[in-house]
Amino acid sequence: MGIVIPLEEREEKAAGLDSLLALIGPDLQRVNQLILQRTGSDVTTIPEVANHLISAGGKRLRPMLVLATAGMCGYRGDGHIKFAAGIEFMHTATLLHDDVVDESDMRRGKIAARMLWGNETCVLVGDFLLGHAFKMMVEPGVLPCLSVVSQAAAVIAEGEILQLNSAKDTQTTEDAYMAVIRSKTAELFAAAAEVGPMLSGRPKADEAACRSYGMNLGIAFQLIDDALDYGGQSAKLGKNVGDDFREGKITLPVVLAFRRGSENEREFWRRTLEKGEIADGDVETACALMKKHDALKDTVERASHYGAIARDALEIFPASPWKSALLEVVDFCVQRAY
Amino acid sequence: MGIVIPLEEREEKAAGLDSLLALIGPDLQRVNQLILQRTGSDVTTIPEVANHLISAGGKRLRPMLVLATAGMCGYRGDGHIKFAAGIEFMHTATLLHDDVVDESDMRRGKIAARMLWGNETCVLVGDFLLGHAFKMMVEPGVLPCLSVVSQAAAVIAEGEILQLNSAKDTQTTEDAYMAVIRSKTAELFAAAAEVGPMLSGRPKADEAACRSYGMNLGIAFQLIDDALDYGGQSAKLGKNVGDDFREGKITLPVVLAFRRGSENEREFWRRTLEKGEIADGDVETACALMKKHDALKDTVERASHYGAIARDALEIFPASPWKSALLEVVDFCVQRAY
Repeated sequence: MGIVIPLEEREEKAAGLDSLLALIGPDLQRVNQLILQRTGSDVTTIPEVANHLISAGGKRLRPMLVLATAGMCGYRGDGHIKFAAGIEFMHTATLLHDDVVDESDMRRGKIAARMLWGNETCVLVGDFLLGHAFKMMVEPGVLPCLSVVSQAAAVIAEGEILQLNSAKDTQTTEDAYMAVIRSKTAELFAAAAEVGPMLSGRPKADEAACRSYGMNLGIAFQLIDDALDYGGQSAKLGKNVGDDFREGKITLPVVLAFRRGSENEREFWRRTLEKGEIADGDVETACALMKKHDALKDTVERASHYGAIARDALEIFPASPWKSALLEVVDFCVQRAY
Repeated sequence: MGIVIPLEEREEKAAGLDSLLALIGPDLQRVNQLILQRTGSDVTTIPEVANHLISAGGKRLRPMLVLATAGMCGYRGDGHIKFAAGIEFMHTATLLHDDVVDESDMRRGKIAARMLWGNETCVLVGDFLLGHAFKMMVEPGVLPCLSVVSQAAAVIAEGEILQLNSAKDTQTTEDAYMAVIRSKTAELFAAAAEVGPMLSGRPKADEAACRSYGMNLGIAFQLIDDALDYGGQSAKLGKNVGDDFREGKITLPVVLAFRRGSENEREFWRRTLEKGEIADGDVETACALMKKHDALKDTVERASHYGAIARDALEIFPASPWKSALLEVVDFCVQRAY
């Protein structure tokens, strides 16, 4: 199952997002328009690069969280559109800088922007998007929300540096790995979900609930992403399987398979991930070892654990179509792996 | 003449900043403390890289503008400390990303951060500083100032992309070059100077005056920097002369020398700057051609023109030690070239 679902195909394939899309549809359209408008520049490289990433697909999960939590909290205003677009810009800037940092050739089955426009342009267009993200998010004039998103920007970068420092280290512990994904992925989900109640002026408890929902959903999302990179729980070999493996990324499936493996197997992981010596058939071997040690199954279980926390966090809100839709997002994220 | 004047040596050498430093001394200390505090992280790479650039010298001109315009406008509060530190973080993030973009080995006579820590770390520590810059600047809770600095972040990145697109093009016009330095250098000077009156709640006319002062000072500063890279008006060959030349940077001295030169001379500029074929003696030839065509002298004259505009912008303010000190900064910036 692919991860990037272009807008047009979404409605058929991603059943779990249907209720949400029905509720936020018109707002999401406005977000898309704003994104297009704000990536416009006389410097033509900018819309080219930005649209390569932003328009070309992506589930828009983070902006959807802003719109949906704002909806659930009864927000009446326009600020959520700008925060949704701003957070998508922050996310896109991270992807652009990540490509440079990882020296990736591909991103999710598409040629990486840095291969098309060069590292320099990716660094600078990322900076441009980050600048415009803040510019847009300042406009609604809601200071507490600006605290949350700027805090997220700082934490994300710190998480990426942490990841860089522990890169290719097969001895990485599960805890160390969790610290990285909390910062680099879940923090922005948390910020996106927290902005909704904040814009709506809801009590602290509601903000904390939505933040917790976003944080745990983000963790679950990243864990499932990691499992999908090895074919998901069924370990089916799809066309993009093994990207993380080829880049030497230490993700939870690797952490588990390495720890549970024999000394011979650990040698395999060290050769392929630490030394980067990857031969024909190694991706298949990696997937087989993961199956043998239930590494993907247990990664999905861990994800379910965080998904359950996300669901419970929302329980303090009264029943509403918004709440139900947000709960379904959790299922959608976790069930991608099956 | 060196451009980077470490803190300790400043007081003897940079006479033109004396009055300003006497006025803002205690505030500048607080800014330095805040910078050290906010670059602290458990991820040790972060303070290492950040301090390589931030603590190791630099004139702190941009933070000084925040402090001085706030002082001139009678600001009573602490917000200027955070904006001063935040703007220095923005500047440092730009330097880190610039090193990656330019593939520089050196920055102002020091080994470039990217040579010590790698491109990846420089990209990410830049992002970390940018995130923390906004976090700090959100804290005082003054929305109009946040508009100004986030606008500056977007414009700076756009200017850098513009520069990248016209890189190594000897046919660049003076206007095209001016558009680049307005965005990539002067915009942040303008933002720094505008924050002072904004924090102080002064009328629009005062904001516009300070912004114009900062913008024109920034242009003058960059032009003098460009001239100094070829030895300044006297074209004396110091130890860092020719950095821009070796990197193929098209600056105003090049634009002028190229346009005023013979076809043979233009061929020299094309070979060295566009093709990057630099042989022994070429730096000296470049300096000689600039002398022949008064390219440095006229770059300094252009700088004086913008310096004069900066000075006139401040004339609406009543006489004060702050105003005098800010006027002296203009002289300091322009006279570095002699």
